[in-house]
Amino acid sequence: MATNIVWHKSSVGKLHRQELLQQKGCVIWFTGLSGSGKSTLAYALCQALYSRGKLTYVLDGDNVRHGLNRDLAFKVEDRAENIRRIREVAKLFADAAIICIASVISPYRKDRDACCALFPERDFIKVFMDVPLQICEARDPKGLYNFARAGKIKGFTGVDDPYEPSLNFEIVLPEKGNNITSPYEMAETVISYLEEKGYLRA
Amino acid sequence: MATNIVWHKSSVGKLHRQELLQQKGCVIWFTGLSGSGKSTLAYALCQALYSRGKLTYVLDGDNVRHGLNRDLAFKVEDRAENIRRIREVAKLFADAAIICIASVISPYRKDRDACCALFPERDFIKVFMDVPLQICEARDPKGLYNFARAGKIKGFTGVDDPYEPSLNFEIVLPEKGNNITSPYEMAETVISYLEEKGYLRA
Repeated sequence: MATNIVWHKSSVGKLHRQELLQQKGCVIWFTGLSGSGKSTLAYALCQALYSRGKLTYVLDGDNVRHGLNRDLAFKVEDRAENIRRIREVAKLFADAAIICIASVISPYRKDRDACCALFPERDFIKVFMDVPLQICEARDPKGLYNFARAGKIKGFTGVDDPYEPSLNFEIVLPEKGNNITSPYEMAETVISYLEEKGYLRA
Repeated sequence: MATNIVWHKSSVGKLHRQELLQQKGCVIWFTGLSGSGKSTLAYALCQALYSRGKLTYVLDGDNVRHGLNRDLAFKVEDRAENIRRIREVAKLFADAAIICIASVISPYRKDRDACCALFPERDFIKVFMDVPLQICEARDPKGLYNFARAGKIKGFTGVDDPYEPSLNFEIVLPEKGNNITSPYEMAETVISYLEEKGYLRA
């Protein structure tokens, strides 16, 4: 066997991996209030893409706060570091050619903009879950609004800390003017976007 | 369209992703002195597995120290945190069903053991690059030994900081008793191990 083969570090790159998977690596970033349905939609999207033979990976609090970010608390600088690390890991996943689905409240415009800036090729798709606070609070799936109203959690988005809206979301859900609100149907809206932009082929 | 479909968070799991990729997610962790050939072999393995249609991703200093770990320096606690984050990200990649190839000096036994402990199903394969210091130092591909001998880098593994050997490496390269030393051939040794253990099928 020849021993003089020169191996180049970059011999297998993102394009090769995309060819293998027949998809383009990107990040779909769900942002919005607690209880707005980010994680539910993230997993619905994961399921719907899997049924099309596409490889996705969901980054959310459950699999990040218990591992990579277990050293972080909820004070301001820790929340910023939490988002920074998630966006850096998401970038690695996108480079691996995976459709990375992140579910993060990410209430501050500057943090979301910093995420965008990491993806010069615009493979960072922000999906805003535009659900009124009243509805999120009525759902309160984790009981967190209850705690926040009782003063047991400080700096809770929507209660005593703001969600800063943006004008540059790629997708806003539920879409205005129709009554599509099931996770399954909203996932299809995201998939239509991905198809249109060419993410579901190499 | 039915709107009463219940979506379970875990509806697409590691097993489904493995089925899609026809491989098992795992971590191959190259450890050894600077200049021992870890990164060269990592990319050779990546190339050889790609030619077999397998999806890998290399985590090394280049793509981690410039992003996720850009806030870390080289003092003792930062080096430990560097390894901790790499192993946590490697775990996410393995969960995504990817064959994750990490290239990290990781000189301390306790750090490597902490990595192992994250993978109760033993999907963590330590490959020790058993190359004598003299050879590594003669290669000195990044000029780091030169700096360390001149006292410009402190705590450099092999010079003024130890590499702690272990008895529990899954693979040691180059293998004793044969003269296989090209990256291409050593990559085939790792692939034989992966095939034998069933990692290259779902």
